[in-house]
Amino acid sequence: MIKTAVLGATGYTGTELMRLLSSHPEVDLALVSSKSYAGKKVSDIHPQFKGQIDLTLDQMRVEKIPGSIDLVFCALPHGESAEAGAALLKRGFRVIDLSADFRLNHADLYSQWYKLEHPHQDILGSAAYGLPELYSEVIKGADLVANPGCYPTGVILGLAPLLKHKLINLESIIVDAKSGVSGAGRAPKQPFHFPECTENFKAYRVASHQHTPEIEQELGRIAGEELKITFTPHLVPMVRGILCTTYLELSGSKSEEEIFNLYNSFYSSCPFVRIFEPPLLPETRFVRGSNYCDLALKLDMRTNRLIVISAIDNLVKGASGQAVQNMNIMFDLPEETGLCQTAV
Amino acid sequence: MIKTAVLGATGYTGTELMRLLSSHPEVDLALVSSKSYAGKKVSDIHPQFKGQIDLTLDQMRVEKIPGSIDLVFCALPHGESAEAGAALLKRGFRVIDLSADFRLNHADLYSQWYKLEHPHQDILGSAAYGLPELYSEVIKGADLVANPGCYPTGVILGLAPLLKHKLINLESIIVDAKSGVSGAGRAPKQPFHFPECTENFKAYRVASHQHTPEIEQELGRIAGEELKITFTPHLVPMVRGILCTTYLELSGSKSEEEIFNLYNSFYSSCPFVRIFEPPLLPETRFVRGSNYCDLALKLDMRTNRLIVISAIDNLVKGASGQAVQNMNIMFDLPEETGLCQTAV
Amino acid sequence: MIKTAVLGATGYTGTELMRLLSSHPEVDLALVSSKSYAGKKVSDIHPQFKGQIDLTLDQMRVEKIPGSIDLVFCALPHGESAEAGAALLKRGFRVIDLSADFRLNHADLYSQWYKLEHPHQDILGSAAYGLPELYSEVIKGADLVANPGCYPTGVILGLAPLLKHKLINLESIIVDAKSGVSGAGRAPKQPFHFPECTENFKAYRVASHQHTPEIEQELGRIAGEELKITFTPHLVPMVRGILCTTYLELSGSKSEEEIFNLYNSFYSSCPFVRIFEPPLLPETRFVRGSNYCDLALKLDMRTNRLIVISAIDNLVKGASGQAVQNMNIMFDLPEETGLCQTAV
Amino acid sequence: MIKTAVLGATGYTGTELMRLLSSHPEVDLALVSSKSYAGKKVSDIHPQFKGQIDLTLDQMRVEKIPGSIDLVFCALPHGESAEAGAALLKRGFRVIDLSADFRLNHADLYSQWYKLEHPHQDILGSAAYGLPELYSEVIKGADLVANPGCYPTGVILGLAPLLKHKLINLESIIVDAKSGVSGAGRAPKQPFHFPECTENFKAYRVASHQHTPEIEQELGRIAGEELKITFTPHLVPMVRGILCTTYLELSGSKSEEEIFNLYNSFYSSCPFVRIFEPPLLPETRFVRGSNYCDLALKLDMRTNRLIVISAIDNLVKGASGQAVQNMNIMFDLPEETGLCQTAV
Repeated sequence: MIKTAVLGATGYTGTELMRLLSSHPEVDLALVSSKSYAGKKVSDIHPQFKGQIDLTLDQMRVEKIPGSIDLVFCALPHGESAEAGAALLKRGFRVIDLSADFRLNHADLYSQWYKLEHPHQDILGSAAYGLPELYSEVIKGADLVANPGCYPTGVILGLAPLLKHKLINLESIIVDAKSGVSGAGRAPKQPFHFPECTENFKAYRVASHQHTPEIEQELGRIAGEELKITFTPHLVPMVRGILCTTYLELSGSKSEEEIFNLYNSFYSSCPFVRIFEPPLLPETRFVRGSNYCDLALKLDMRTNRLIVISAIDNLVKGASGQAVQNMNIMFDLPEETGLCQTAV
Repeated sequence: MIKTAVLGATGYTGTELMRLLSSHPEVDLALVSSKSYAGKKVSDIHPQFKGQIDLTLDQMRVEKIPGSIDLVFCALPHGESAEAGAALLKRGFRVIDLSADFRLNHADLYSQWYKLEHPHQDILGSAAYGLPELYSEVIKGADLVANPGCYPTGVILGLAPLLKHKLINLESIIVDAKSGVSGAGRAPKQPFHFPECTENFKAYRVASHQHTPEIEQELGRIAGEELKITFTPHLVPMVRGILCTTYLELSGSKSEEEIFNLYNSFYSSCPFVRIFEPPLLPETRFVRGSNYCDLALKLDMRTNRLIVISAIDNLVKGASGQAVQNMNIMFDLPEETGLCQTAV
Repeated sequence: MIKTAVLGATGYTGTELMRLLSSHPEVDLALVSSKSYAGKKVSDIHPQFKGQIDLTLDQMRVEKIPGSIDLVFCALPHGESAEAGAALLKRGFRVIDLSADFRLNHADLYSQWYKLEHPHQDILGSAAYGLPELYSEVIKGADLVANPGCYPTGVILGLAPLLKHKLINLESIIVDAKSGVSGAGRAPKQPFHFPECTENFKAYRVASHQHTPEIEQELGRIAGEELKITFTPHLVPMVRGILCTTYLELSGSKSEEEIFNLYNSFYSSCPFVRIFEPPLLPETRFVRGSNYCDLALKLDMRTNRLIVISAIDNLVKGASGQAVQNMNIMFDLPEETGLCQTAV
Repeated sequence: MIKTAVLGATGYTGTELMRLLSSHPEVDLALVSSKSYAGKKVSDIHPQFKGQIDLTLDQMRVEKIPGSIDLVFCALPHGESAEAGAALLKRGFRVIDLSADFRLNHADLYSQWYKLEHPHQDILGSAAYGLPELYSEVIKGADLVANPGCYPTGVILGLAPLLKHKLINLESIIVDAKSGVSGAGRAPKQPFHFPECTENFKAYRVASHQHTPEIEQELGRIAGEELKITFTPHLVPMVRGILCTTYLELSGSKSEEEIFNLYNSFYSSCPFVRIFEPPLLPETRFVRGSNYCDLALKLDMRTNRLIVISAIDNLVKGASGQAVQNMNIMFDLPEETGLCQTAV
């Protein structure tokens, strides 16, 4: 049994970690912490766990975490997570960090997009980028895994096969992304107040969302050269799910079928990536509550653009499910262990 | 033209007042105030008014309201409204108060249910209760109108004809009420955060909701004797609408048709009460955005209970629409003026 | 491994059965049938199963079901289910029927409320009523289990302890029930068309819903005498969940705490019933996707009525989860096997 | 008073026409027809009109429409509308057609995208394209107005100023559009069944939606040369609203402010187009129930792409509101008459 701790357990990604870890056959969920609710029982804050998790929430103190813990999940706000992560590494723990704090390789990018000086620039760039479909070998041996952002997960899995094969005109990438509201976190704010959020659709942070540099860094790494994208996120009146519609120009001539085959072969050993055969298209409900990333490819013959559609559950494959997948790899378990949920 | 002011214009009832007053043919919306947004333009806070309302939000200072204002709508939180209302009356303004502060006749009931000492007990009981279907004569001449609560409006209109005719066993009344989320106001809070509110249904303040004494006071007034009810409100994952399902025992024997006729005749001169003929039942969407109260009556022959179903838009007939209806009466306009919206 | 078949696999209860059975550690989901989609792959109709269920849908022919099947779940429309159930029993299969066809003991009640002559009145009344919290001993040995209706499950579990102890005035029971839209089934119809269903709340089949006689029969069986209830179902704009608010008069004097203790002790060995301590109240989201029934009890001291609130997921504890729970009992597995999902 | 008839009055655009026309101060809604509900009262089918519209639905027979009707709105399915429109013109009526039947100038485009031979190719191209912001002069004198599609309205208003000034690289236009479910019409179908539609987001008819040729024809007309676009529609779990996110490359160098000024000046006399100043962005709720088209412009400095965001209510500015606006122009009324609704 892997003895695990979750720091920041009562936010949405922390809660989702508890849901997945408490039913994982090889995991002992030993410690959960929360700044706001320390001292309370998990099931008092989240009654869905009544009868399932009988833990009391600890205060978040890295120095008090018992040495017997095998793996710590950090589900803290960015900034705080960097501090905790550095302290945990120093104490010798293996860490999966779900914040943005260890994803970017350059401190200036971090400060530019997150409006915050990174407090531990020394370990920036030392983390394994936790996208198992591309980096499982590195993840296996890592002490620090930077769990990818939700939007980046959907975009990167949608483009990796083409980028790897140098089939994209790198100046042409436009990502029009749509996310459910849980992506905004658990703290109540005016734009996510039910009466202002339901029956509404809008774009936000147009051409200025903080996931942009992460996507560019990771797409660039796959492509082998730097690139820039246009990225527009939107807010959908639903709880879970991200659908990304990505537009690009192919650098060479390929048929839709050739591209489909390329993707199928690229992801042949990836249990959580499903390539949909035309005319079936991904919908967020097909992945809700599950760790899948569903993909479809459509060549617009009239304009010669390829349209890639990807769907994930932002809290599962876009956060906590992917973190559990990374844990499985780090502890030599089959990748799917504890992650076989079907969409509800 | 009636020169009007709205105090507390940016909350949901205030905003709804602006919507209704700005298109009212006999109203000049002259002054709007807001504590939180003083100095900003209405359309900066609520962009739907861009091109329609070109006013800047004032600070809420009763003493600065120009004497030329004919009518002040108070859409302030309870407690604050009592203070403002008293000061406005002193300055000689006519006032329609949308808070709970002038609805109850007894200060002890107020402090017991609102957990607040009433600051102006002298004028408690002096207000006209602004339910036009029952009290239009008093409203006409009133300087202070206490606009009814949303739940009370739905319940009272549903029971008035039977109570007036002494046809209800007064100990038997159970009200199971369901409200959309706008009833909770505009301030973001955890239970109304979209991800925790959508796809969810719950009861709240069971047998302890603060509208209970208002309902009992007003039903008792119609019946001519005191009564107690069981009242359970629920939260529906929608923005607008209240549906009340009220159960009661008839004190005498009546057929469904006789009761239907009684209601039709009782409300024959009331343009905003619609009695649905069986088998048609009210739905909140039929009244959304409109000032109607829709009613249906069903006699459960197997148990001899009458089930009364009433539907209103909580922000219109349950608040701002009713306030405008009261204004029309106070200023000798036809009751429907500016209130002919069909449900959207 | 229990070899199972699901007849009517593509409707909502059938699909939910596939979700639960495909991840059940002791079950081999061997055969799935569908009238409308025979010949198609499960994952073509319900893409969420891609990568998880690799079965092709059979035509529904009882005579072709292989004798090696240990248990057949019938998730067919009522009427059809009676035919299939009778034929399956004749061929010697054990059957869990999720329709209404074997729940009522009297053919005349069935024809009166379902507007259909029951085709196999001989086996009416021979089925075990599949409510494991009350009848696990009978279920264990049964060949035919009538899986309870969704509303009845919520109501009966909410009242059983009091009825058993003869603490209810039997003429006083009023059930105000609210259900998500999945309860209406998968066939598209006008009232469940998204634009007419979202942002709307309504009552339906007031005092005439077909679950009424089932509730009365089963409550009466527990009470040891016949009774009648008033039952009003409502439609909530959400997919899953039923919340029942039940009003009753106690026949003796009991404190809220005494009643709470009574419930706790009555359900002490029932893993899927959770009694909430005040002031916590059930919400449908706490049980969404899970097999729990959450209960709360509130004594309205002002009117001396008890209010019982129960919440279930209509597709899980109200249908397919309960069916799996019944299967576990029939095959001597721990009741919770494969049913430990936390609400999503 | 303009005497009007609405053919196909019970669908969503027909119902919305009734809502707008019944409160229009210069309109007499004299005749409403419906194939499915002929003989029924409007308020029996749509109870929200109880007390407001007291008309009985006629069968749809062009030859029976009284000659005293000044204007006929055709809100019929495409194909049927062409037949009715042709017959109405022959009888001398002025017609506003809300279907797609008179929008395309070429019969082959129509048959290619609508999979239907156009039955009246002789009058194809004779209709005025009813986008008042661009063609009010032609509309004024027209006997047949082809009311634009919902997506085209949002896209064209978003691009017209730039196209007119030849500021767009015509090969670069990508439209990522998102629509509420009412756009799919009133007939219940599986994808719009509440449980499959809510809490879900998806793309549909990717690179193959039938509004594509209409958008291309009209953008090309403004640009003065042919062009092709990539167009991807998506379905949002809400009832009303379209938000279009359009990506394009500028052909010359312009600052965001210059573009903003260009739009402001282009639309200076258009009461229903609102240009949002940064950082304010359109949201569909700001236009819900109203006839506005809200626009925002964002220059992505990092990639040199312009992002145009437009929001409309698909049933108002995208259909029935625009039709009423066209009527106002045809009958020399101020454009805004009867269209001053604020978003609800």
